[in-house]
Amino acid sequence: MQTKQELFVKLALDAWSIYCNRVTKLVTELTDEQLQHEVSTGRNSGVYLVGHLTAVHDAMLPLLSLGEIMHPELENIFIKNPDKSILKKPSINLIRQYWKEVNETLASAFVKMSADEWFQKHSAISEEDFSREPNRNKLNVLINRTNHLASHYGQMVFLKES
Amino acid sequence: MQTKQELFVKLALDAWSIYCNRVTKLVTELTDEQLQHEVSTGRNSGVYLVGHLTAVHDAMLPLLSLGEIMHPELENIFIKNPDKSILKKPSINLIRQYWKEVNETLASAFVKMSADEWFQKHSAISEEDFSREPNRNKLNVLINRTNHLASHYGQMVFLKES
Repeated sequence: MQTKQELFVKLALDAWSIYCNRVTKLVTELTDEQLQHEVSTGRNSGVYLVGHLTAVHDAMLPLLSLGEIMHPELENIFIKNPDKSILKKPSINLIRQYWKEVNETLASAFVKMSADEWFQKHSAISEEDFSREPNRNKLNVLINRTNHLASHYGQMVFLKES
Repeated sequence: MQTKQELFVKLALDAWSIYCNRVTKLVTELTDEQLQHEVSTGRNSGVYLVGHLTAVHDAMLPLLSLGEIMHPELENIFIKNPDKSILKKPSINLIRQYWKEVNETLASAFVKMSADEWFQKHSAISEEDFSREPNRNKLNVLINRTNHLASHYGQMVFLKES
């Protein structure tokens, strides 16, 4: 019998997995050329968005105390700088590979976490602040990142043929 | 002192409110002309997406046993049929008004719900199925609808000037 707490963690993890899998499907099925297109005129390219999501998800490893960041070089290219910067990006195939590796690493770590762990503080908040704001826990990070992912997924579907 | 159950209902409700408020801000700030544009070439218009989100949120009222649907006529126009159908849409100002009214009605109902109520079954599942799949509760509806909202919000930001 699941407790309500376990049930809620499952709901949040299921939502996360659904959108990760949708993006993985897009990243796998879209051609290199399709991924290089802008999602809408003058907006980010598909490649940039996959790199951006990969960098944001990679940063969840230390934030959730699950391990070291895997590709620290991505932050500068895909978070701190825009798509049209002069920074050299990794190849599309490398970005595809990083996306899958980072999300597989997160998924493996998530299955080992107890429901209680999700209510612990994330690493970017002090004990003192956390005692005042207990909602700033690991679960909050997961929920926020899922919505961030969903919002970019909504943009990336435009790369498919209409 | 909040229980963990209350805490995670708060997390889910906060995420919902954040994206509702973002869309409300867009709906308020974009001109009629901007809302009539397609979010990307050949894709849905802003007006259609606001109508679509309004219809989906409106349907949450009966689904969460919070009341009757407010604008049943929207389902056919904005869910069952695509943007380019020949169906006559309500005016942009009426759609703006419906969006705000439906979400205010939901917000007023949500504040009255106890944490326990979110773990009850939604109205589209039988008691029998729910006993086998307790994750198909009201909270699950809220989480899924938040991600749906976030994914269309990601598209609607393209209506702003770049």
